[in-house]
Amino acid sequence: MNTPSTLKVACQQLAPRIGELDYNRELGATAIRQAAARGAQVVVLPELVQSGYLFHDRQEALALSETLDGPTLSLWKALAEELQVVIVGGFCERLEQGQVANSAALVEPEGAVTLYRKAHLWDGENLIFTPGNEPPPVVATRFGPIAVMICYDLEFPEWVRLPALAGAALLCAPVNWPNGPRPAGERPAEMVRVQANAAVNRMFIAACDRCGEERGVDWVGGSTIVDADGYPLAGRERQASAQLLLAELDLGQAWHKSISEHNHVHLDRRPALY
Amino acid sequence: MNTPSTLKVACQQLAPRIGELDYNRELGATAIRQAAARGAQVVVLPELVQSGYLFHDRQEALALSETLDGPTLSLWKALAEELQVVIVGGFCERLEQGQVANSAALVEPEGAVTLYRKAHLWDGENLIFTPGNEPPPVVATRFGPIAVMICYDLEFPEWVRLPALAGAALLCAPVNWPNGPRPAGERPAEMVRVQANAAVNRMFIAACDRCGEERGVDWVGGSTIVDADGYPLAGRERQASAQLLLAELDLGQAWHKSISEHNHVHLDRRPALY
Repeated sequence: MNTPSTLKVACQQLAPRIGELDYNRELGATAIRQAAARGAQVVVLPELVQSGYLFHDRQEALALSETLDGPTLSLWKALAEELQVVIVGGFCERLEQGQVANSAALVEPEGAVTLYRKAHLWDGENLIFTPGNEPPPVVATRFGPIAVMICYDLEFPEWVRLPALAGAALLCAPVNWPNGPRPAGERPAEMVRVQANAAVNRMFIAACDRCGEERGVDWVGGSTIVDADGYPLAGRERQASAQLLLAELDLGQAWHKSISEHNHVHLDRRPALY
Repeated sequence: MNTPSTLKVACQQLAPRIGELDYNRELGATAIRQAAARGAQVVVLPELVQSGYLFHDRQEALALSETLDGPTLSLWKALAEELQVVIVGGFCERLEQGQVANSAALVEPEGAVTLYRKAHLWDGENLIFTPGNEPPPVVATRFGPIAVMICYDLEFPEWVRLPALAGAALLCAPVNWPNGPRPAGERPAEMVRVQANAAVNRMFIAACDRCGEERGVDWVGGSTIVDADGYPLAGRERQASAQLLLAELDLGQAWHKSISEHNHVHLDRRPALY
């Protein structure tokens, strides 16, 4: 392994518009260029940023879906190569036989595209998407090993463990967190769970939320970039509007799983008992 | 199942003194009486409140250890019966052949005592204690099903899942959280992890920390009582000194694991993939 290095990651919290594919593609491209211009090496976009989120039904989702050679992923591939960045973003993926998946792509500057299909579906997604059955990938990018999962997946610590145990230093998570009530002054529980997931694995997590009311739903706007100790480096508070979060990660922190002379967050697990 | 009811739980954050068994016993008894007088039905005390924490070695721990019929557990049994409360507290348990465990007892007003032995040992504890090999118990108390684990156990979400899946509505966790650096304005990661553990299981958690410098170590003072949504009902901020936290729990929240029309925090797990 090379000497641990730093990595500059960006979350681009955006407001895609449901069904406006051209608008969303342009919105994403502008955001990627902006983040790269600020020095980002990894740019994370929201879940389903290509299509919008609140489909009426599977037919609408299918009509808005893309395959791997569709215009959005083709554009992300071109931008990743041009800007020499890794792009992680969510899109509505067209599968065979009229099925669709809530997917995310990790696009590398060298041209490789790694897909992840959301395995834990939220609410009405169960009526629309085919769930993924594969664990979150860990991709050995030029910037370090990066994993991908999507939104509600983060509520299953068992799921987050898998890429952490497989060596991910950074988990990129496109999310769309619907907003809800919470006690005054409290950081949203969605962000709190990201913190805990990071801390118990000593793994960086960049969660990129969306904003912009859509079909009666608004969003937490809780994009956050959390360090290996579980504290936010950027995105300490929710913000209802668009925002660009940037943080420089000292990836060496994620290689060091020892948290005391006699403790290691992964080797201390007792899987025979779980 | 009976109609869901409310339960009043207390955390008594105290400053035991290492090796001062009589002092600690009296400190605990006073705290239990005080909490009961405030209406608590379940009283949680810190980890190793009977003995103190920072033993020099196993010999010192052994000399300060007790068995189930020792003076501390005998007193807790008498107080549980007299005050008609459940008591959960940590003690240094004498095992056979000169071994000791970092244990917690759940003492019911009817006289039953349920033991738990810490399964994930922190730092120097590895040189002193024999780890437990049994999952956290879930005890059907008169106030509802209550589970017990200890401190570093909470950093393993797989471990917290076990009593949650077994039906616990409230997890009581005696802890001794050594204090450390954290970013200004941030809630300690120890408390954040409790929040996340509660939210992903829709289970109440009462974590009772200690205070009072001991052999050069001070403590987070992070006692907190968290609801099934993952937000603190009491103990929003750390407090370095002794404190009594009280919260009334609507246990019905913990019976309802559904978080949307199509989601259930436990049934949505995909254990075949983990």
